[in-house]
This record gives sequence, C-alpha cells and structure tokens, in this order.
Amino acid sequence: MSKLRVNSFSVSMDGFGAGPAQSLEHPLGRGGEQLHTWVFPTRTLQRVVFGKTGGTTGPDDDFAASGFDNVGAWILGRNMFGPVRGPWPGEEWKGWWGASPPYHVPVFVLTHHARAPLEMEGGTVFHFVTGGIEEALDRARDAAGGGNIRIGGGASTVRQYLQARLIDELHLAFAPVLLGGGELLFAGMDLPALGYRVTSSAASEAATHILIDKA
Amino acid sequence: MSKLRVNSFSVSMDGFGAGPAQSLEHPLGRGGEQLHTWVFPTRTLQRVVFGKTGGTTGPDDDFAASGFDNVGAWILGRNMFGPVRGPWPGEEWKGWWGASPPYHVPVFVLTHHARAPLEMEGGTVFHFVTGGIEEALDRARDAAGGGNIRIGGGASTVRQYLQARLIDELHLAFAPVLLGGGELLFAGMDLPALGYRVTSSAASEAATHILIDKA
Repeated sequence: MSKLRVNSFSVSMDGFGAGPAQSLEHPLGRGGEQLHTWVFPTRTLQRVVFGKTGGTTGPDDDFAASGFDNVGAWILGRNMFGPVRGPWPGEEWKGWWGASPPYHVPVFVLTHHARAPLEMEGGTVFHFVTGGIEEALDRARDAAGGGNIRIGGGASTVRQYLQARLIDELHLAFAPVLLGGGELLFAGMDLPALGYRVTSSAASEAATHILIDKA
Repeated sequence: MSKLRVNSFSVSMDGFGAGPAQSLEHPLGRGGEQLHTWVFPTRTLQRVVFGKTGGTTGPDDDFAASGFDNVGAWILGRNMFGPVRGPWPGEEWKGWWGASPPYHVPVFVLTHHARAPLEMEGGTVFHFVTGGIEEALDRARDAAGGGNIRIGGGASTVRQYLQARLIDELHLAFAPVLLGGGELLFAGMDLPALGYRVTSSAASEAATHILIDKA
C-alpha cells in the first residue's frame, strides 16, 4: 500500500516546527525561515520551488530530493495553505506559491470551512477537506494512484497524524537554532509509545537529519 | 570572572534530558542511557570516569574533554547526586560514583535537606546547599578559585539556572533517539528571549553538538 510520509520537516533544537505569529509577511512564523536554511540552497528546492537550475548537492539535497520521490498526493494543514482564518472570505487566496504551485498532483487541505476545488497551473489541484484527517487521507490515497502521500505540514497537522499512528515514515531536519516560541512538534506526545523510533541519522553543516518509522 | 557552564549535557531529539522514573537501577531514568552513547566510548570519559586508558578520539572526545577544562567547582541537582528523596535517611548514600568520584574539586549539591559536607577520595568534597541556586553559585564561585563552575545537571537544575540567566555557556549533545517521556530541558522556556543563541554546531555519527551562549 502507498505510504504516508513526512519529508524535510524542519525543527529547531528547542522543538519548534514553525515560529510564532504566522502572517502574510511571515508565512513560517517569526524567525521560522531560520529553520529552512539547509534546504533553500539545494538543487532540488531551487528547481522544484523556484524553477531554477543550479543549487547545492550533497546530503541536504539528497534528503530534499527523496521527499519528492513517488509522491502521488499531498496533505496540508490550512495554515500551511495560507494565513486566512475562519470562513473563506472569497476565492482570492490561492496559496503561497503563485499560479503554478510546486506540487503538480492533488493536494488535500484540512479546513473546517468548505470551499470548491481549486485547479492551478502545472497539475496542482487543491481540494478542501472538512471531514478530518482520516477523510483527507482516504481521499489522498485514492487520488495518489498507488503513489505515496506526503504531509507538507504544519506542525499541528503532523501531530494529529502521528497521534493517530497514521504516518509511516518521517524525515525531520533539525536546524541549529533556538526559536523560543511557535509550534511545538512533539509536545505532550510519547512517540516511542506510539510505535515510532529513529532508524538512522545523518548530519550536514546546516542540519541533522533524523529518519523515523513506525514499528 | 569565572564562567558558569554546562557541558556534555545530552538531550533526545524530542527534548528530554533524562528518561522517566529515575531509580537506583536507572540513574538516568528509563532509556536515559541512550542519550549518552556518544560520550561513553570517548577517551576522556574512559579516563575521567573509569580510570582507563584508550577510548575514541575525534569531535565527541574533543567536546567531552573541553568540559573538564579549568573547572574549579561543580553544581549538581540532588537527583543527579542520587535517587534518595526527602530528608536524608543517614549518611550511607555517597553519590553514584564510588569512593573516588570523577570531580576532584568541591561539588555543591542543591537540596532542601541539610547534611554535613562529605569528603571523598581524590579531592572531591560534596557540599549540600539548602539556600537555593544563587547561594550554590556564590559558594561554588568562592571555592573555584578563579576557575569555571560546571553544572552537571540534571535538567531541572539547568532549567533553573537558565531561567535566572546565570549560565554563560552551554554545550548540548543531541542524541538521535526519541525518549517519549522524562525530564524536558526546554519546556516553557524562551531561550532567545532570555538572551541565549546558538553560536556553533558540529555533528558526529553519534550526536549533534550545539554551543549556546548568552548575549
């Protein structure tokens, strides 16, 4: 069966998966961009997100690249889709990524507020799911056509799927920074008790990569 | 002035500085020994703690060794001194380390229960301080004769000194394991707001070393 994966999810040494006070100006929360300095320069991110050639190679790029292997659908929390809260005020907000988002497959956005699907350039279609994490996973699995499903984040979405023991594999990238506030990834969660354990780790100058799977 | 330092303090990727349920059988809490696999094989630890020659060299050993540079006094939380809780039932418990503990200088143990100083072989003298963290630091500074003061742990002691902004430098070693429970090092603490920031990091196969200082 296709796997539910988290890849390239960045965490500060004090456990935050995003900074505090997400907004239009600070999509990753205040200070959150420091979590991602390992991935921005990689060849993979430059190509996938910015459409550029060039970029760094090495372990950081290898991890970034494997996150895009065989992904048939994505799941995002609503805050990862945008800064809008509450009922959708209209159809204007179409994600952080411009006309052609870097997904190119169906993307299921968790929300409490219904909205019609949104077809973007390049094959990305945003579907808004109001029935909860299991419904989103069922629909993503159907849409993925045998490919894997990747959870893009944010921390709250990853936490919900972990607590439900639905995630098969995680790749976390710990950045050598302290955020002091924001979205905690692990708070109150006993991952070993849920069946998760570290299977391997590797470090670059910019991040410590931890691979976790479910026993 | 002499510095107050934390060195070789091991933390799991989910933020625990010790496992749950410390006891005579599990001085580091259940599973806590996994935090320290980076340091046990090092030449420094083999020499200092076990009196052996041999052991590994490299970054892990370099960090372990620098933790013993110019240390004139130590501060320990009571749980790091032993598993005994409440009033001292007698003088039998003399620490985890046998007749000749690996300190060789005065050691100030935080406790709510007075006890006479305890002179051990090899220069270690345990002093029991009931007046709180500032009194322990004042006495340690006097005793250190211009040397630095090292906090040995545990997590609760490190947290108290961090919250009081009394620590000058920390070296944390993140081990690639998940503990799921135990003593959280950072919970509820905003280190950047307290003036702390990461100044450098380095990784070995066994740990990611993070250096933090106070601005």
